[in-house]
Amino acid sequence: MSSSISRLAAIAACGVMGLTAMTSNANAQATGFPTAEESDPNTMGWMTGFPPPPELRITNPDSVFFSFPRMRWSVCHLREFLPTEQVSRGLGAPMPMEYALDDGIDAVTFRPLRGDVEEMTWEESLNANYTDGILILHRGRIVYERYLGCLTEAGQHAAMSMTKSFTGTLAEMLVAEGALDDTLLVSEIIPELEPSAFGSATVRQVMDMTTAFEFSEDYGDPNAAIWVYNAAASPFPKPDDYDGPEGYFEYLTTVGPDPEGIQHGQEFHYRTPNSDVLGWIISRVSGMEVTELLSERIWSRMGAEQDAYMTVDGVGTPFAGGGLSAGLRDLGRFGQIILNGGEWNGEQLIPAAAIENIRGGGDLDAFAAAGYADLAGGSYRGQWWIFNNEHGAFAARGVHGQTIYIDPTAEMVIVRFASFPIAFNSRIDPTSLPAYQAVAEYLMAQ
Amino acid sequence: MSSSISRLAAIAACGVMGLTAMTSNANAQATGFPTAEESDPNTMGWMTGFPPPPELRITNPDSVFFSFPRMRWSVCHLREFLPTEQVSRGLGAPMPMEYALDDGIDAVTFRPLRGDVEEMTWEESLNANYTDGILILHRGRIVYERYLGCLTEAGQHAAMSMTKSFTGTLAEMLVAEGALDDTLLVSEIIPELEPSAFGSATVRQVMDMTTAFEFSEDYGDPNAAIWVYNAAASPFPKPDDYDGPEGYFEYLTTVGPDPEGIQHGQEFHYRTPNSDVLGWIISRVSGMEVTELLSERIWSRMGAEQDAYMTVDGVGTPFAGGGLSAGLRDLGRFGQIILNGGEWNGEQLIPAAAIENIRGGGDLDAFAAAGYADLAGGSYRGQWWIFNNEHGAFAARGVHGQTIYIDPTAEMVIVRFASFPIAFNSRIDPTSLPAYQAVAEYLMAQ
Repeated sequence: MSSSISRLAAIAACGVMGLTAMTSNANAQATGFPTAEESDPNTMGWMTGFPPPPELRITNPDSVFFSFPRMRWSVCHLREFLPTEQVSRGLGAPMPMEYALDDGIDAVTFRPLRGDVEEMTWEESLNANYTDGILILHRGRIVYERYLGCLTEAGQHAAMSMTKSFTGTLAEMLVAEGALDDTLLVSEIIPELEPSAFGSATVRQVMDMTTAFEFSEDYGDPNAAIWVYNAAASPFPKPDDYDGPEGYFEYLTTVGPDPEGIQHGQEFHYRTPNSDVLGWIISRVSGMEVTELLSERIWSRMGAEQDAYMTVDGVGTPFAGGGLSAGLRDLGRFGQIILNGGEWNGEQLIPAAAIENIRGGGDLDAFAAAGYADLAGGSYRGQWWIFNNEHGAFAARGVHGQTIYIDPTAEMVIVRFASFPIAFNSRIDPTSLPAYQAVAEYLMAQ
Repeated sequence: MSSSISRLAAIAACGVMGLTAMTSNANAQATGFPTAEESDPNTMGWMTGFPPPPELRITNPDSVFFSFPRMRWSVCHLREFLPTEQVSRGLGAPMPMEYALDDGIDAVTFRPLRGDVEEMTWEESLNANYTDGILILHRGRIVYERYLGCLTEAGQHAAMSMTKSFTGTLAEMLVAEGALDDTLLVSEIIPELEPSAFGSATVRQVMDMTTAFEFSEDYGDPNAAIWVYNAAASPFPKPDDYDGPEGYFEYLTTVGPDPEGIQHGQEFHYRTPNSDVLGWIISRVSGMEVTELLSERIWSRMGAEQDAYMTVDGVGTPFAGGGLSAGLRDLGRFGQIILNGGEWNGEQLIPAAAIENIRGGGDLDAFAAAGYADLAGGSYRGQWWIFNNEHGAFAARGVHGQTIYIDPTAEMVIVRFASFPIAFNSRIDPTSLPAYQAVAEYLMAQ
């Protein structure tokens, strides 16, 4: 491992943690890490002082900008470490959101999954989950809004793998509009992927992550795919002796078939390179980068308050699987549009068929094979997680606790940014999913 | 020179070209480079395709992102190569600008300096200067606006050394408000600079660039100050054997006295590290980074349409001497505020005394010693160029043709973004300064 690449372990995290998310069924327990209060970046004083003294610095060369507790600061400052592309809000006036704040929500109680804690209030759950920002919309109005940790209302926070759901939504839009045929083989759209395992998958299999390909996440093996992927993705100057792939797209052309003979369509495997393939497909079909299409179709039309941005690789390709950072209320706008079936301010921003397709869910058997205890009975469709619960809820999810949780029955959208110390949503879901359900029931009773 | 640093020649450019600007008195002539039309980045097709084919790529590791003609694309995309910090516009609605377009301006004629061309129209001057965007305000209304090359109305362009005038204006504000005493020695505010040549200069000498210090720009000498400065400024992971200063501020502490015995206050020398010292002073005094203070005091209060941003070094310090990128009309707003004596929309955004101080100009003798033929009789004050011409014009200026040109007599502000192939304003001024004067006279006659 050359020094320049190993230094990029932090970058790796952006992809890695997306990849490893939700693959453990460990019980929710004390993390062994400092609490949310103890690790509050404002208390820690990261990057204060001119210049910050060495012990308060968070820098790229230190390889630690995405390690806990520094990560609690870095999630609000990714652009200060990495090259990025703008997702423009356009030049118009933001569309204000309506408020109907409900001060009863903090006291809503719920029982965490797997019984580690008898009962917990919504308010207690915020720090239990290292929440940085949380917004609840009910019937289109903001009923709850909090900023903690590094986030302010004018800040942007790493969406992590929630990025996938934006990429997936753009793809579903193109499918619904007839611009993208999801039954085609990937190689029919991206001939460069013909030699790769992805070439023989259908676009739909990529969208729903039922592709099969070789992808070792054995961090101890310097030749493991995850390291090749990370090195390719690095936007920094490569070492002189680097001869690996350059950028996400070139990496994708090198991916081999599943070594155990698993075929496309058999099993759901949550693996970020699928989202990069989808980003490539979107760009080839639309003629625009994911950042441009996201701005053109969504961000510049939803009355966003802030530009968003995406990290890029060394050839300027946005990270479609995890690179987005954005403001809390802007994700609330997006979630509400999805809940609205694509309608926003009198305009059909997203075809209703695209959202119906997502809500219809993916292959249940393929998903069951992945064995997510807390998501049993669920599925994955168009890069969204479908819970198949009584309320028909579905979500964008990112490691460290990011979510856009949409409950159509309760007419509720919850957006959460967080910086939970461990990169497993299975550690966070026990004090999150039942909390969302409890707030949904509370709001329905109002 | 280690590989990782030499690869950063492109970054160096950001500082270097600021430093070398306006030090030549060469005649305006054909540049020998492709014309503006030939080098138009839209024609060249830079970074088109998914991924861009190698011959159309502009990447950091190639060291060429800031070389002509690639530079004509890169000036609109600095954030895609470098870590940056946001200069937030806040979350409110932009304040629209009034229009009173005047289609007579294109035909205004002028005689270029030094007689290489007999006569030229304003319209001809745009491509002669590789203009990417130009805005003319007369009595507060937009009378002329063009986007060429890489720039659109929703894009941001590198301001290059115009950044200094923003830094300088912030400093003049703090002086006018009594928060900063410009008669103090730098070391009285920044004790870390006591061992450096800057420690014994006054704040005012830093603001007006009449400091004396060792600063070799001998690019052939790998130990020249310019290389040490560039290496320190790089935001990328340093080579393992790097033992130089980390970041702008640490570099500044290492700067020695002028080797020829020149003392502070004697001569004007246009050298970017002064602006970095000033950024440090501003941050120490205000408790905010330059980005934060610029947002807090200006950007979030002027009805800006877009966020701006600044590049940062490896410890998160914004490049106060050249790191700003912004939208054309937002620089127009700023220029108009300066012309208005600091008043904007009924509010005194900048103390009138701060702007009076700038307009009053700097030390004429110190400036004359620098020998700028096209700026004879001028001066430099608070990081602004004072022409001392009949109209009392003054300007922010950056290499490759950037300017905010303010003509109080004509009640005119001109903002230009450009990507002239050569980093000397002395090559651009002959077809710019007389053109500005001719348009001023035209507008006064309307």
